[in-house]
Amino acid sequence: VRRGQPAAHRRFEAMHAQAGWAGSGSRFGLAGAVLAGDLCLSWSDELFARAGFAPDAVQRGRTVFNTMRTQLMGGQYLDMLEQASCAQQGPAGAVERARRVVRFKSAKYSIEHPLLLGGSLAGADEALLADYSTFGLAVFGDPGETGKPAGDDLREGKRTVLMAYAVASATTEQAAVVERLLGDPALDSAGVEQLREVLVDTGALAGVEALIAEQVDVACQTLDAAALTEPARAALHELVVAATTRRS
Amino acid sequence: VRRGQPAAHRRFEAMHAQAGWAGSGSRFGLAGAVLAGDLCLSWSDELFARAGFAPDAVQRGRTVFNTMRTQLMGGQYLDMLEQASCAQQGPAGAVERARRVVRFKSAKYSIEHPLLLGGSLAGADEALLADYSTFGLAVFGDPGETGKPAGDDLREGKRTVLMAYAVASATTEQAAVVERLLGDPALDSAGVEQLREVLVDTGALAGVEALIAEQVDVACQTLDAAALTEPARAALHELVVAATTRRS
Repeated sequence: VRRGQPAAHRRFEAMHAQAGWAGSGSRFGLAGAVLAGDLCLSWSDELFARAGFAPDAVQRGRTVFNTMRTQLMGGQYLDMLEQASCAQQGPAGAVERARRVVRFKSAKYSIEHPLLLGGSLAGADEALLADYSTFGLAVFGDPGETGKPAGDDLREGKRTVLMAYAVASATTEQAAVVERLLGDPALDSAGVEQLREVLVDTGALAGVEALIAEQVDVACQTLDAAALTEPARAALHELVVAATTRRS
Repeated sequence: VRRGQPAAHRRFEAMHAQAGWAGSGSRFGLAGAVLAGDLCLSWSDELFARAGFAPDAVQRGRTVFNTMRTQLMGGQYLDMLEQASCAQQGPAGAVERARRVVRFKSAKYSIEHPLLLGGSLAGADEALLADYSTFGLAVFGDPGETGKPAGDDLREGKRTVLMAYAVASATTEQAAVVERLLGDPALDSAGVEQLREVLVDTGALAGVEALIAEQVDVACQTLDAAALTEPARAALHELVVAATTRRS
């Protein structure tokens, strides 16, 4: 979804309302969006097969493509589970669980698998593919979004790596603030500020920034040691910068 | 969904309730079911590719497989559109529209494409594939479900071919009965009986039965003329019987 554009289910719902059709507009919207997603999922597969690669390259790429789809869906489900069960499970292990969600839902899909897919299609050897994995998971393995969380994420109650760090080292008082405010749809700017203070005061922000710096080091060392030529190496270095710069 | 088994979204919802998780159980259920569906859609594709057919057979079959997926999703969307807009569009063209939904949502997916898929994998020639299409669309092209509609279909307000026939030749009084009762979730057995009377009295039931008989003729003639051997011919004749027997 591009920012500023309504999501698919909202557009189908609006179409239903505008036409004055019978039945529930929100159900129509949901069903339409699910079908549009299914179509895109099917078509991505057809586009890949018909993109003009040699049959044996397509064959190699398919293994990555299939793993990517399955792990993305698994990651999305892990995310749902974590949002639903995080409060119940408590702070122990929350950082590791949040990192796992980011890894499966974002890091693999956005960085690792695209690199592996390109590498496989071009006939990269096992060693280079392994370097792509290490690089891809490091550069995006944490924490997804850096800097201050947006008010909307806090209102939604998103269980991010940053929040998991905060909860893991919160005092009783700070934990109570998170419990009370995180996920409150009516959270105002004073509430947002209070939550942000907890993120700073617990050391969560500093902790995540240290983690990112550590992962950037891993990514850069991997790049430097990998059997890469230019312009690939430079492009991947730029990716590290793009993926880890604070959005602030 | 097997009868008696809750649908996927209900099972995810029940899991959410049983665990006492946070957030909306119905949203969790919907999202879980969508992901399960996406996984199955992806895996169907992988199973097809790895079923052990020769590469050139898989290639031929993929064209059918891809068309099948896309047309099924299109058929499902046509069905949603028809349910939502049927009352507004009125009786003109309703029979044709309802038949088109059955054709894309059921006939192609349940009969035509499976025959074409098997035929393509086995190397059938164009003429036999054309006969499969004619046969497949005839035997299931109308009207999906024969005999008396179940109370649940009437409560859901399902716009079937049978109902389209009824509306097309209803008197003002009969049309008012349909308008008032079809899709009423609280419809009782007296209401079900009233709707069924309209289906009989308008001649819709007889009309649909005549249509089925006509289509069975087309299917059987196509079978008899097709370049088929036994046991294929006999099996397809049995399919005609199975697909057109009243469930009553």
